Amino acid sequence: MVSKSEIKLITGLHQKKYRNRHGMFIAEGIKVITELYKAGMDLRELFTVDADLFSFTGNRAREISENELKKISQLKTPNKALALFDIPEEKKAGNSGIVVALDDIRDPGNLGTIVRLCDWFGVEDLVCSTTTVDCFNAKVVQATMGSLARVNIVYTDLEAYIRESGLPAFAADMDGENVYTASLPEQGILVMGNEANGISGNIRLLADRFVSIPRFGRVQQTESLNVATATAILLSEFRRGYQ
Amino acid sequence: MVSKSEIKLITGLHQKKYRNRHGMFIAEGIKVITELYKAGMDLRELFTVDADLFSFTGNRAREISENELKKISQLKTPNKALALFDIPEEKKAGNSGIVVALDDIRDPGNLGTIVRLCDWFGVEDLVCSTTTVDCFNAKVVQATMGSLARVNIVYTDLEAYIRESGLPAFAADMDGENVYTASLPEQGILVMGNEANGISGNIRLLADRFVSIPRFGRVQQTESLNVATATAILLSEFRRGYQ
Repeated sequence: MVSKSEIKLITGLHQKKYRNRHGMFIAEGIKVITELYKAGMDLRELFTVDADLFSFTGNRAREISENELKKISQLKTPNKALALFDIPEEKKAGNSGIVVALDDIRDPGNLGTIVRLCDWFGVEDLVCSTTTVDCFNAKVVQATMGSLARVNIVYTDLEAYIRESGLPAFAADMDGENVYTASLPEQGILVMGNEANGISGNIRLLADRFVSIPRFGRVQQTESLNVATATAILLSEFRRGYQ
Repeated sequence: MVSKSEIKLITGLHQKKYRNRHGMFIAEGIKVITELYKAGMDLRELFTVDADLFSFTGNRAREISENELKKISQLKTPNKALALFDIPEEKKAGNSGIVVALDDIRDPGNLGTIVRLCDWFGVEDLVCSTTTVDCFNAKVVQATMGSLARVNIVYTDLEAYIRESGLPAFAADMDGENVYTASLPEQGILVMGNEANGISGNIRLLADRFVSIPRFGRVQQTESLNVATATAILLSEFRRGYQ
């Protein structure tokens, strides 16, 4: 059984305002829920049409009907389960190793890909401008899987962070130096900018260096790589020399 | 005015079967249509609510009402224009330089990203298994923009292509050699596998070498990078030494 007040609470969590008010976010589907749970996220509630699927939680699952699941799900075709997890406490962003900083990334798919990249490349802190899309947005949660639990994602004043971190800031920019020949340090901030406008003026002023990925094709000057794709290549360049 | 028979034709083109029968595909939105046109794709028909937007086509645009556009569009919010372009003739895939080969890629977003990467990195031929998602699928068209006109995309028997090309085949695989330390040639085929299952058995048998992207984080053994993200990093590795 899902009560009316629970339905109201859960559907509210599709909005950032209510996620923050209640300190909870939604994950849907067996795989995502299992990965977040195993990665150590704090499970608050677990609704499923088949509790056997989640025996590893030790009877935490509440069995509900397909119809009830439809009422709380945001998916067209709900995938057997919906869970509420606690939003983890933000730890202060660190100032060592490679930090990725996002200046106003808007697309949830891009943020999801970048969180997974941080996890893969051992980036502990992902620092986002307060205008960047919320990482507990349903689409980001589905795209990141367990990585969401392993990367410390901090929303803060990006200018202040860069200024106070003491780390050199490398801004991704079409006119930057060739990243393949640039000498890259083991510690620094890789700053990626907005999908349409790139890095904002104030952040540009704080950048120590600008890096770009050389073009090999007949591509026109105006086109650029998608920001998540560019992050993949740039992060790989920062890591490859320090294995 | 859009006639009834045109509406029927255009809505049919959302299916691959009818795209192939008529040799046409759909592009929607000002930006995509403009880019494809400027990149040299053959425009068959152009419907728009504002012909002034497309003055550069020399009066090729047919003005229609918002309501008519809704009838032929696949988008929830149609974006001012819909065009039909000729599907270009497939040139035979070449056997020089770096070729990217896709073994059963199913997600249109992944294929779109990979087409853009090929364009960026000057890869002329993208060879796809016949099971790979159609590159004239509406979602792929929206994601690739002008790149669709600049990369030669060939659907063929991938085994036969690899066997006959004479190029060394590098298969992306979790257990492959470290791509950062592998010596990579200036010519070869980079083979990327299916989202869930990786590279199929028959193609594995044809691979000369296997390459992988090292993991730096605490990621579990079972997780992998998304195939489009992995393609970005691997293609970058093939190119960086030959600028």
